[in-house]
Amino acid sequence: MALIVQKYGGSSVADAECVKRVAQRIVATKKAGNDVVVVVSAMGDTTDDLIDMAKQVSPLPPGRELDMLLTAGERISMALLAMAIANLGHEARSFTGSQAGVITDGTHGKAKIIDVTPGRIRTALDEGSICIVAGFQGVSQDTKDITTLGRGGSDTTAVALAAALDADVCEIYTDVDGVFTADPRIVSAARRIPRISYEEMLEMAASGAKILHLRCVEYARRYNIPIHVRSSFSQKEGTWVVDSSEIEGQDMEQAIISGVAHDRSEAKITVVGVPDKVGEAAAIFTALSEAEINIDMIVQNVSAASTGRTDISFTLPSTDGQTGLSTLNKLRERIGFEALRYDDRIGKISLIGAGMRSNPGVTATFFGALAEAGVNIEMISTSEIRISVVVAQDDIDTAVAAAHRAFDLDADQVEATVYGGTGR
Amino acid sequence: MALIVQKYGGSSVADAECVKRVAQRIVATKKAGNDVVVVVSAMGDTTDDLIDMAKQVSPLPPGRELDMLLTAGERISMALLAMAIANLGHEARSFTGSQAGVITDGTHGKAKIIDVTPGRIRTALDEGSICIVAGFQGVSQDTKDITTLGRGGSDTTAVALAAALDADVCEIYTDVDGVFTADPRIVSAARRIPRISYEEMLEMAASGAKILHLRCVEYARRYNIPIHVRSSFSQKEGTWVVDSSEIEGQDMEQAIISGVAHDRSEAKITVVGVPDKVGEAAAIFTALSEAEINIDMIVQNVSAASTGRTDISFTLPSTDGQTGLSTLNKLRERIGFEALRYDDRIGKISLIGAGMRSNPGVTATFFGALAEAGVNIEMISTSEIRISVVVAQDDIDTAVAAAHRAFDLDADQVEATVYGGTGR
Repeated sequence: MALIVQKYGGSSVADAECVKRVAQRIVATKKAGNDVVVVVSAMGDTTDDLIDMAKQVSPLPPGRELDMLLTAGERISMALLAMAIANLGHEARSFTGSQAGVITDGTHGKAKIIDVTPGRIRTALDEGSICIVAGFQGVSQDTKDITTLGRGGSDTTAVALAAALDADVCEIYTDVDGVFTADPRIVSAARRIPRISYEEMLEMAASGAKILHLRCVEYARRYNIPIHVRSSFSQKEGTWVVDSSEIEGQDMEQAIISGVAHDRSEAKITVVGVPDKVGEAAAIFTALSEAEINIDMIVQNVSAASTGRTDISFTLPSTDGQTGLSTLNKLRERIGFEALRYDDRIGKISLIGAGMRSNPGVTATFFGALAEAGVNIEMISTSEIRISVVVAQDDIDTAVAAAHRAFDLDADQVEATVYGGTGR
Repeated sequence: MALIVQKYGGSSVADAECVKRVAQRIVATKKAGNDVVVVVSAMGDTTDDLIDMAKQVSPLPPGRELDMLLTAGERISMALLAMAIANLGHEARSFTGSQAGVITDGTHGKAKIIDVTPGRIRTALDEGSICIVAGFQGVSQDTKDITTLGRGGSDTTAVALAAALDADVCEIYTDVDGVFTADPRIVSAARRIPRISYEEMLEMAASGAKILHLRCVEYARRYNIPIHVRSSFSQKEGTWVVDSSEIEGQDMEQAIISGVAHDRSEAKITVVGVPDKVGEAAAIFTALSEAEINIDMIVQNVSAASTGRTDISFTLPSTDGQTGLSTLNKLRERIGFEALRYDDRIGKISLIGAGMRSNPGVTATFFGALAEAGVNIEMISTSEIRISVVVAQDDIDTAVAAAHRAFDLDADQVEATVYGGTGR
């Protein structure tokens, strides 16, 4: 008997019919002889609707109360799902994050899971019950206040529970068939990736592929929980996210590039004319970090010898843009920079692939493809298995399609060819 | 500095504008130098909407899950209210029933409060915060499951918290100006009752006056918490519900009848041809009690000597009608009754008044007024300070108006005359 954790997103439980269909799927898993723990998000647009309500009463609602409000969403979906399962003749019990033992820190709106103590879940499983757990939420260790993990946090809840319960697999159900080589809405020839390593999936998530939450993948990697991303609307196999050792052994002819991700959610701030002294960059990024702003790419130009000043550009979530600007403005006198520039009409394109490590020339091909498509590159950053560029927002679709084609990812080029360029 | 518990019903927080207006009222109470604890119901029709959703996934949702679902309603309203108060510059913290220490038994859907341990509320008050507490809900002592107190239970939450915190007053805000001598929608001449005793209010609540929940009044009487029922849409004084000693001393010329209540929510079951043996009635009502059905009026006719059989009629909430019938049908062979009759086209009219005790003739005047209005009486029951009759549903409005007029309660008869009839 296996223990399976299943996570259903908001689109999978958007209305009563969806809830009933998901209930059947859960019962089928139980009937196949498995213990089943289900993590569920709020129905459809519930979370957005609740945020709209909050804005109607307060322009800047306190985080504690916003978390209290938003957690009503999963409470509704999980109770309905438990009812639908009970109606199929199987016992189901719903649990809030707090009841399921999801202990977090106290950062409202984006709390981090500190510990998972699923004693009540374990007991309910032992009593033969299917357990339905509210995703996205927990309880703070210090104040016992209700917290949320941030958007997409239900994935993290699922993997964290899977780890704490030593589950055999964590199935993440969504409205697409798995992880694709690019967003199929942009690249019609995009293909499903059957297996991908944690590391590549992490880079995909960090690069804007919305299918899995970054922290969920980090958690899965740390505890080595296999994730199966699949559609709640079909029985097809989806994408397995597993340890790289399991892929490298099997897929000898692995493609160099697993996928092309893009991200429209970032903005770029340029701090103009920063005195080129030790510690100025540190002061800037320390202040931003204290304001809880996640910085993504950073570029510092070589300082002009004539002025002794340099420009520092970085990208951040555009939702943090105003906070970022006001945080930096407070530092203006102390650091003595000249100006701030803000641009949220940008996009980030990333190539991700473990094969990149051993294949030179990827950068040249990528940049060549962008140049040929007439796309200008504004910023560049790289990791072991990723190359990202910032381009103008209007160029995103063109850039994704060009990269996808250049690396032979289009569906009609089924056989992944081993790329051999010269020098990365 | 006084400690005031305020309770706002669903119609007082029906939308964002209402929530903001209630927030202003709460802040005004706080600014006047009081500590404030607010108990809030779900917004407008939220609870009904959630029940509709439940019915869409399951015809008979498990009580535990229905409670989990319904408690989302107060979670939304209390968080929004706390945000609206924060937006006015005052600190407010919302607490679920569980967080506020509302401990109940495990009867889902109509749990009873066993204990209130408001440690977190006390701490928050001491820190200068306004506390917003979810009405209608608690947590079961044994299983730590979420429970609800049944419809109208928010009133009970408010009084129970007021008692546990030793509050000076419990203000119940609603959409009318207080308790009236009759439902103003039926009797346009109905008047607001300025002061009423716990005992009379209990009889009013038990007789269908929906303005206060029965258990709330019981709780208030037990702990001697003054209740002020008033409108959230005006600053007018409402109705004070207080100990009878405080009324009798002041209102020498108290009216005999405080009000006329009516109830459309009951149905009547007649058990036909029950063998007239010791213990048969007990068996019937024990079974109904075990099915958690609240019986209201009971009438047993004198048995016909020729058959040795009798008919037993009783009223019960019509929502319990099906359960009642099926419970009795299971007993049919054991008891040997002949048939069951069910009628939900009935209504109950009740006269309530502490003055009834010392004034004979009330019954005669009441029945005389009904007869004159052409209303047939189907069942009768009385208490020390109440007379109730069951009539056909179509006769309810006529009967209420007739009784109201007969006891000089109409607004143009402002001076309450002391009634002196002959023999009750």
